[in-house]
Amino acid sequence: MSSKPQTAITPTRNEDYPEWYQQVVRAADLADNSPVRGCMVIKPWGYTIWENMQKVLDKKFKDTGHVNAYFPLFIPMSYLEKEAKHVEGFAKECAVVTHSRLEAGPDGKLIPASPLEEPLIVRPTSETIIGEMYAKWVQSYRDLPILINQWANVVRWEMRTRLFLRTTEFLWQEGHTAHATRQEALEETRKMLNEYADFAENWMAMPVIKGEKSERERFPGADSTLCIEAMMQDRKALQAGTSHFLGQNFAKSCGIQFLDENTERQYAWTTSWGVSTRLIGALIMTHSDDDGLIVPPRLAPKQIVILPVLHKEESRAQVLEYCTNLKRDLESRVYGGRAIEVELDTRDIRGGDKVWQWVKRGVPLRVEVGPRDIENDALFVARRDCPPKEKKSIPRAEFLATITDTLQNIQDTLFNRAKAFRAEHTKKIDNRADFYAYFTPKNKETPEMHGGFASVHWAGDSAMEDTIANELKVTLRCIPLDGETEQGICPFTGKPSQQRVIFAKAY
Amino acid sequence: MSSKPQTAITPTRNEDYPEWYQQVVRAADLADNSPVRGCMVIKPWGYTIWENMQKVLDKKFKDTGHVNAYFPLFIPMSYLEKEAKHVEGFAKECAVVTHSRLEAGPDGKLIPASPLEEPLIVRPTSETIIGEMYAKWVQSYRDLPILINQWANVVRWEMRTRLFLRTTEFLWQEGHTAHATRQEALEETRKMLNEYADFAENWMAMPVIKGEKSERERFPGADSTLCIEAMMQDRKALQAGTSHFLGQNFAKSCGIQFLDENTERQYAWTTSWGVSTRLIGALIMTHSDDDGLIVPPRLAPKQIVILPVLHKEESRAQVLEYCTNLKRDLESRVYGGRAIEVELDTRDIRGGDKVWQWVKRGVPLRVEVGPRDIENDALFVARRDCPPKEKKSIPRAEFLATITDTLQNIQDTLFNRAKAFRAEHTKKIDNRADFYAYFTPKNKETPEMHGGFASVHWAGDSAMEDTIANELKVTLRCIPLDGETEQGICPFTGKPSQQRVIFAKAY
Repeated sequence: MSSKPQTAITPTRNEDYPEWYQQVVRAADLADNSPVRGCMVIKPWGYTIWENMQKVLDKKFKDTGHVNAYFPLFIPMSYLEKEAKHVEGFAKECAVVTHSRLEAGPDGKLIPASPLEEPLIVRPTSETIIGEMYAKWVQSYRDLPILINQWANVVRWEMRTRLFLRTTEFLWQEGHTAHATRQEALEETRKMLNEYADFAENWMAMPVIKGEKSERERFPGADSTLCIEAMMQDRKALQAGTSHFLGQNFAKSCGIQFLDENTERQYAWTTSWGVSTRLIGALIMTHSDDDGLIVPPRLAPKQIVILPVLHKEESRAQVLEYCTNLKRDLESRVYGGRAIEVELDTRDIRGGDKVWQWVKRGVPLRVEVGPRDIENDALFVARRDCPPKEKKSIPRAEFLATITDTLQNIQDTLFNRAKAFRAEHTKKIDNRADFYAYFTPKNKETPEMHGGFASVHWAGDSAMEDTIANELKVTLRCIPLDGETEQGICPFTGKPSQQRVIFAKAY
Repeated sequence: MSSKPQTAITPTRNEDYPEWYQQVVRAADLADNSPVRGCMVIKPWGYTIWENMQKVLDKKFKDTGHVNAYFPLFIPMSYLEKEAKHVEGFAKECAVVTHSRLEAGPDGKLIPASPLEEPLIVRPTSETIIGEMYAKWVQSYRDLPILINQWANVVRWEMRTRLFLRTTEFLWQEGHTAHATRQEALEETRKMLNEYADFAENWMAMPVIKGEKSERERFPGADSTLCIEAMMQDRKALQAGTSHFLGQNFAKSCGIQFLDENTERQYAWTTSWGVSTRLIGALIMTHSDDDGLIVPPRLAPKQIVILPVLHKEESRAQVLEYCTNLKRDLESRVYGGRAIEVELDTRDIRGGDKVWQWVKRGVPLRVEVGPRDIENDALFVARRDCPPKEKKSIPRAEFLATITDTLQNIQDTLFNRAKAFRAEHTKKIDNRADFYAYFTPKNKETPEMHGGFASVHWAGDSAMEDTIANELKVTLRCIPLDGETEQGICPFTGKPSQQRVIFAKAY
């Protein structure tokens, strides 16, 4: 038996995937648990990834005609009741503000004081409060469409939390639009889904399936919910973004009405769409390996780290100067719409520790420079998408001339690797027994590492989905939008079906 | 008596300043009241000014070595008690979360359910929760300094609210740093104050006095508070930013300790500093006039609006093409670190209404283009810092060649105008009677329009400040940092004083 290769992260993905995830987050210094149950602290390295995501998404929203605004954190309790399904979906897990002051109690400890007339909830999502404002702003068809996005924090009182993937408070953006016609709102829903898919694939290097949710999985209050679904390395699905066609449901509950061109009163058609800091969890679980985080170059806080070899005093100044010039030359180049970001790490710590720190933080390129490299005017380069010991000496001029290609090549490699992984773990299944077997761990598999995406014909209903969810913890992830029409038989109902859907375990 | 000139905003500043302010906010479409008491909706035009402020400030923070991170919205109630003065300052006005669920009550209406073991407060500021994390992260002097900033929403339960100036929820940034030495923390406090002052003067075109607060006005829990104070057009002071030297107070209450180079355990020295959406209120009240908002070009959502004259069908296409080219040419130029932003307003509404809309929204330059202008290859240009009817025909080539100078000239004009206004309403006062007379409205003055900044010698204490505040609603705004040393006598105590301080009514 060959000896187990040493990895920077213990346990490995195969040994204990959930624990591996926690250790990657920790080793990359992305986030920390806070003393407030279920709330995380996003540390600078993690937050910079979020900032990079925000910049790209924000530009996409603005390029498609949206503007940003800001709506209140608090929503009057009674607003939730306006939309019947909405309240059902969110009342069970929300932070309720009941007092507006603290005072010293009998024992000198603080107690809540000044109870509010009506409790407020901390927004779990903002359809109701934004709808209320739109009702005020919209009078005529000339006031439509309203195309607004908000960057905000939201709170959903989760019982089991996990950094980035499921936290009580999280950061997100929520687009809220109002339109004069059903058609226009439908187009908006689809347009923003496409923007999300483009972001996931071309920026996060994460392949996604664009699809529609079944009624059971729909956003509370939506007529239809579109989504992008990605496969994580434990073969589970992660919903990475949603775009909802809300029909006239919220327009009716909030009173968003307008006079059309014939001066007839109409209800508006609304949409909402959002992605959150959950995307950072998706990014981690799509690319990282047993040595830690791997960040796609287009979203990396730093794309390159320069590690000068400084242990000889006589060459120290020369090496530092060479590295400083290299940094400047790299930073003058543009990749993915921004100047390349370079870290020159001159800290006086052990070289090995330093290298591993940057491996675990997922920086795409590591460049070592020592006196001998300078003699040859060459650099010792390691790619994060290759094994950690694999290094290559590259002439400085060549490295500079090809840097954007190299970064794009890493980006492409990550995308293709994730795509191949998904293909490997997606299976067309045509009968019930195979479906059950697919989602049941076999002897040699760890409980987390089995199954994948099952592509099956479907003519079932919500009750049937409940049964499957109860028996296998598997849910209908989506009905693919780009799926081929194919005549088949639903293995659960025996009814004819025109299209395959995706079932999987999910985050 | 000459007839009163017509203004786009009623009432005028002189007639009713507080109401004028509300009307300017409304006419410029900057913000709206929300159905949640004290919480505002920041509308796209207002939010874009905030985004522009954020971009400049964020770059300043990063250029001075800071990184962004994100900490929880909620703070356990008991944390507030850790710092005695801090709890005194914030317990009286905070939103308290006591439940984590809503359920249907006996009458079917929702009621709060699942009470929390310990109530949470919505952060009014984050010293305590961030201090708690720093205590965990800091072990050795090598972990210092920590230089972190957070962009966030905060909540302080205000009784009387006013859009931007005082709202229950507001947006801000809060920098929180920890240092190994007192000296370094003091330098940080001063450095960030200087960044704020530079931002106020060179971006907002708002002159400020850098100063230190008296003990009475200090941040709860700080050893010293530095501030920038600006004068509004009703001659009141507005505190536009603060930078606090927190000594070891929060390090002790949160346990931020480290081993120094001699392996001795020490408490860290911390600072915090912040500016908020209040700056938008300051910007409005510094520059706007009786025709509405005036935005300094460096922060304007759009620096230029092009208004094509389209009423003749036969010239329509030609005018539109000319304007589109003009827009493109302007947008290829850079001013204040970003591409010039241009709105081409082709809406089919009355020309006069259209012009006044942009006047009220404060766009620095309006450019009208009709068939006759095109014949001459010239533009009809109006500057927002000049009277609304003052327009000038400028050859297209000249307009383009001088555009960045023109914008900077408007920026400078606004700054100089505000500076002259402040000088006009700042008075050296050397006795108590003059001081009281200065702050007492005379016959002809409206209650809001009198006084200004009183520059007086001071050797008083907090009790004396209380008396002045009670009798005149005037407070000690700051002890100027750049003030000259000057021997004098405090008119309130008769004691000798080495420096003049600023007293004023304040927002």
